[in-house]
Amino acid sequence: MKGLTINNLVVGQKSSFSKTITETDVYMFAGISGDINPAHINEEYAKNTFFKSRIAHGMITGALISAVLGVQLPGPGTIYVSQALNFLAPVYFGDTITATAEIKEILSEKNRVILETYCLNQNGVKVTSGEAVIIPPR
Amino acid sequence: MKGLTINNLVVGQKSSFSKTITETDVYMFAGISGDINPAHINEEYAKNTFFKSRIAHGMITGALISAVLGVQLPGPGTIYVSQALNFLAPVYFGDTITATAEIKEILSEKNRVILETYCLNQNGVKVTSGEAVIIPPR
Amino acid sequence: MKGLTINNLVVGQKSSFSKTITETDVYMFAGISGDINPAHINEEYAKNTFFKSRIAHGMITGALISAVLGVQLPGPGTIYVSQALNFLAPVYFGDTITATAEIKEILSEKNRVILETYCLNQNGVKVTSGEAVIIPPR
Amino acid sequence: MKGLTINNLVVGQKSSFSKTITETDVYMFAGISGDINPAHINEEYAKNTFFKSRIAHGMITGALISAVLGVQLPGPGTIYVSQALNFLAPVYFGDTITATAEIKEILSEKNRVILETYCLNQNGVKVTSGEAVIIPPR
Repeated sequence: MKGLTINNLVVGQKSSFSKTITETDVYMFAGISGDINPAHINEEYAKNTFFKSRIAHGMITGALISAVLGVQLPGPGTIYVSQALNFLAPVYFGDTITATAEIKEILSEKNRVILETYCLNQNGVKVTSGEAVIIPPR
Repeated sequence: MKGLTINNLVVGQKSSFSKTITETDVYMFAGISGDINPAHINEEYAKNTFFKSRIAHGMITGALISAVLGVQLPGPGTIYVSQALNFLAPVYFGDTITATAEIKEILSEKNRVILETYCLNQNGVKVTSGEAVIIPPR
Repeated sequence: MKGLTINNLVVGQKSSFSKTITETDVYMFAGISGDINPAHINEEYAKNTFFKSRIAHGMITGALISAVLGVQLPGPGTIYVSQALNFLAPVYFGDTITATAEIKEILSEKNRVILETYCLNQNGVKVTSGEAVIIPPR
Repeated sequence: MKGLTINNLVVGQKSSFSKTITETDVYMFAGISGDINPAHINEEYAKNTFFKSRIAHGMITGALISAVLGVQLPGPGTIYVSQALNFLAPVYFGDTITATAEIKEILSEKNRVILETYCLNQNGVKVTSGEAVIIPPR
């Protein structure tokens, strides 16, 4: 149960995690976050919005990126320093989102790693972009 | 069910949401995100880590910020453009986290608002800092 | 984080909260309540009932009324004294329910407020009616 | 899977359901209902209230009564007509609540049954009282 140390990481290395985001995910996330914005939980409201339907909380795509970093690359023992997220397109209920983290830069002297992070939906549309900084496990 | 439009927003305006983050939140978030890093869900593992105990996913603090923006300031109709998050200190099970968003800049011609966003625990320790960009409801 | 005190309440004042009630809500509510009546969780059973399909627990509409009183009118600090609920029509999975509380009477000397409470579905059908008595925050 | 018809019911007949109400129940109920009143989800706030701690939503006791009626007495096929609830005392996390429904009156010509409904905690304190009206299964 230990992730990859800095010596086992190289620029360009990447890892992905995919999940179909369901109404259940969004409703449970509403309870955890307290984010009961009607765009997420009120279909009558949502059908009159620009998106025409309830959409997932953008932060759920951030959660999937967190899964890639914490479970796969580098995995257990990673300390999450920062995450920038750009919400580019809506995630609809039933969309299958693939979150990917790819190593961009390894700062060995600081023991920090910078990763490009992004989420695509099942049609290849980039719904979230951004960048993570982490401290890999020692 | 409509949040504040740009004309009702001023620099310095702020809003907060507080919640005690529980084991329940973390376990449900693990399921939603797929982030099953043992630091969050394995006490035997966690007690041998630097943090000595299971800790919440940092992204849960991002979720609370999302609640402030989507429900209160500016509220329904807001489009979330981006969020930067710096994870500064761990959130333990049972910590009460207050997420705050404060308007820093209003870009009227672009219809965008920049907010400083941060989360404090019950002892006043800043656990997360960062910045959000949103499009307020029209 | 303090709701409206009695001096800020007037007869006729009202507030609403709307949510699309999903299978997720009903299944989680079944677990919380222990109400595993097949009308709520068994589609094969339910399709032979008068309602032709699984329906939500009536008490979920009561829960939405609780949200209006506890979050909005009067909000935090309210003590819930009593609630009468008449279940008038079924709530189907996917129905969007709007719960409303409207102040009917203010008993200043007793520090109690009586509210008419009701829930409508997306077609305007009243699914629940009733009355709440609360003590507003001091 | 059919409950008791009116001919199998007598005045004085009663049935109970008991459950320990946990933080998990309250947090999931907050998500279902949208009732994110800090008395339920914010321990720092709650410790300065009259109750000194987070408490369960009163409506959860109503949910337990719904379980008695829908599962046991009379059980499947019951139509829930109305429920009156008086919230008499707080339910703390970890309290074991026993909900009881007892038949008070059988209105055969109208095919309606009136039940006294109440919830006691593990110390015998009545936390909720009230009355239900139901139509038993045919």
